[in-house]
Amino acid sequence: MRYSQSFINTRRDDPKDETATNARLLIRGGFIDKLMAGSYTFLPLGWRVYQKIEQIVREEMNAVGSGEILMPLLHPRDVWNETGRWADPNVKQIMYQFKSVDEKEYGLSFTHEEIFLDVVRKNSLSYKNLPIKLYHFSTKFRNEPRAKSGLLRGREFIMKDLYSLHATQDDLDKFYWEVKDAYLRVFDRVGLKDVKVVEASGGVFTSGHTHEFQLVSPVGEDNIYFCDKCDWAQNKEIYTHKIGEACPKCGGQVEEASSIEVGNIFRFGTVYSEKMGINFKDSDGKDNPPYLGSYGIGMSRLVGVLAEVFNDEAGMKWPKSVAPFLIHLTFLGGAKDEAEKLYKSLAQKNMDVLWDDREESAGVKLSDADLIGIPYRVIVSDKTLAKDSVEIKERGSDKVEMVKLDELSSWLERLE
Amino acid sequence: MRYSQSFINTRRDDPKDETATNARLLIRGGFIDKLMAGSYTFLPLGWRVYQKIEQIVREEMNAVGSGEILMPLLHPRDVWNETGRWADPNVKQIMYQFKSVDEKEYGLSFTHEEIFLDVVRKNSLSYKNLPIKLYHFSTKFRNEPRAKSGLLRGREFIMKDLYSLHATQDDLDKFYWEVKDAYLRVFDRVGLKDVKVVEASGGVFTSGHTHEFQLVSPVGEDNIYFCDKCDWAQNKEIYTHKIGEACPKCGGQVEEASSIEVGNIFRFGTVYSEKMGINFKDSDGKDNPPYLGSYGIGMSRLVGVLAEVFNDEAGMKWPKSVAPFLIHLTFLGGAKDEAEKLYKSLAQKNMDVLWDDREESAGVKLSDADLIGIPYRVIVSDKTLAKDSVEIKERGSDKVEMVKLDELSSWLERLE
Repeated sequence: MRYSQSFINTRRDDPKDETATNARLLIRGGFIDKLMAGSYTFLPLGWRVYQKIEQIVREEMNAVGSGEILMPLLHPRDVWNETGRWADPNVKQIMYQFKSVDEKEYGLSFTHEEIFLDVVRKNSLSYKNLPIKLYHFSTKFRNEPRAKSGLLRGREFIMKDLYSLHATQDDLDKFYWEVKDAYLRVFDRVGLKDVKVVEASGGVFTSGHTHEFQLVSPVGEDNIYFCDKCDWAQNKEIYTHKIGEACPKCGGQVEEASSIEVGNIFRFGTVYSEKMGINFKDSDGKDNPPYLGSYGIGMSRLVGVLAEVFNDEAGMKWPKSVAPFLIHLTFLGGAKDEAEKLYKSLAQKNMDVLWDDREESAGVKLSDADLIGIPYRVIVSDKTLAKDSVEIKERGSDKVEMVKLDELSSWLERLE
Repeated sequence: MRYSQSFINTRRDDPKDETATNARLLIRGGFIDKLMAGSYTFLPLGWRVYQKIEQIVREEMNAVGSGEILMPLLHPRDVWNETGRWADPNVKQIMYQFKSVDEKEYGLSFTHEEIFLDVVRKNSLSYKNLPIKLYHFSTKFRNEPRAKSGLLRGREFIMKDLYSLHATQDDLDKFYWEVKDAYLRVFDRVGLKDVKVVEASGGVFTSGHTHEFQLVSPVGEDNIYFCDKCDWAQNKEIYTHKIGEACPKCGGQVEEASSIEVGNIFRFGTVYSEKMGINFKDSDGKDNPPYLGSYGIGMSRLVGVLAEVFNDEAGMKWPKSVAPFLIHLTFLGGAKDEAEKLYKSLAQKNMDVLWDDREESAGVKLSDADLIGIPYRVIVSDKTLAKDSVEIKERGSDKVEMVKLDELSSWLERLE
């Protein structure tokens, strides 16, 4: 894509009204724009990052046999009354609820359990057509009085939420652990290699624990306790030991860290099905309430988390799998025509290239390249052309490699 | 994809609470589910149709040099006050506006001109970085007291909206007509071959006409007047002649018809820029308000329009370009294992196949296939296997073709 047509507006200075690293870097790099506290527009560069993450999540959700749908965001009060959540004080604190001018009462989506169950109950349910597994990427709203963490905590944000309905607790459990593995694959693929699966309180609705996916990070608002040897981990809510005590699973040492939650999974059991009067026919023809699971990944939050993790003093350093582009092509001096030719040949091969076609100084262009943080920077200049070459540098590395023009596309293809 | 895992629930009978053909057919075919009047969930089959349309629109928007973004849905009152639209009685009728518990005032998106302008004004604008062209696929809300037309008129729906900002009226005009052509390509590609570009009133904000894209249809809520010879067409609002009078452009005969609006394009000029105090530096260094264009396609409405147009008494008849799948593979009698093998080999070649793996009667399976309306139905049965063949039938045609198993994938590849 052409830089000049992509509405990329970098800034030298930090925005004054942002304290969070992710918001500062993403605004400076031209990835997002702030509408109000906790609400951002994804600009072309940021939206490309989001879309790459979305495709990874989609692949992993399809791989566990779930189907993609889209549920509405504006919900009538009645369906939320069935579970009692409409009037729940905890819900009222975070859900935007209002009356329209014609006195109808609505709430804005902050989760979709009720809507999912309303969709499935319109079909006759039997043990033969369970489990049902459906997910969507959709907007959530949450009344945050103080939203100061950029994309990490928004008034409006995008979630991937998956819902599943099962004939037995065993079947729910089996799928629950499959989703856990799928989530770890997602986080690994987007570049987050050390996400911990942390036990958390089940709340009033679940018998066992729920699980959070936590990334250890100094900017995290959560606190977790984890073993330095095995996979045992608990969040602050349920952790009852003392720091320094041995890991209850393997005897290793328990550590404490602040962390950011990037996903969570819940087994609600039959509570919501019972409240909404939903049953399925078991193999004896008897009516039973089905078991509900619910699984979320904060999609726009992930963009913010990646910005917190992958940066240096010069700007972003995107992992290859989610970078807005793989290659940042630029020219110096009088080499624009040759660079443009190169861009066209790479674009024709469907390579993932941002072509900085601007007539700006070398200083501006190279510092913009660092700020945007695309993994590979390719420079075409009179100096490189004299050797029939381009100069390639990996973001964050000091090593510069000269690659012959006629070997470039095969060199780049190895990266994808 | 496997039928048994795709949450496809067809219905023999029409839903009792729907009068619109599109809603009846799409609910019966398992494409959508109704949450409340004017609000639907897209189920896996319907979402695939939506996604195919979205990709076509995305390609055409990228082809006119515009960039994809995502703007928020929950808007603070202040930005809508700048243009005076917050308090406009026409806006108040359709925009959901409310106060949160902490007394902040919000409105839900029914269009995004103010938000787009708020995004661009944070950058220093000059004739050098204009035009700006950005689009998104996003949810719109509209308080419809009586929403009875299925996907044709919703309280919540998906739009593609594109906004452009220009240094001159000429540049806006030039892009405006480029978008007109892009829209006609979109409608042609999704299967709507006879969409008319209809002149409409500019309203108070535009000097020239705006244009609507209207599909002649007996279920349309609009009325248009068009020439039977040339491309002249006007909507009811501005049409001042009498039926029977000659076309003012070519002398042909003017006809009247009901129609469905599938898109519209506006040239707002500098009115909104002036109200919001937005200027750009022209080549003389002087400040001038830039020219705004706004261009919409009703995305979820298009799914409804296609359902109104492409059906027969047995169900849907999707055009190939937007069908949820290209091939509906099913088996009769004891041929399941052979059909499953075939499915796996086609899936491995990334062919777009729905595999009806259910143990149901031939009657149920064939009538479900007609209801869902995938273009090509492939049957594997003991009878076809005796001839090392499958039976292929195009939806809506009576002709049945026998194709040898080892020639099937090349036969199908020719369809894509």
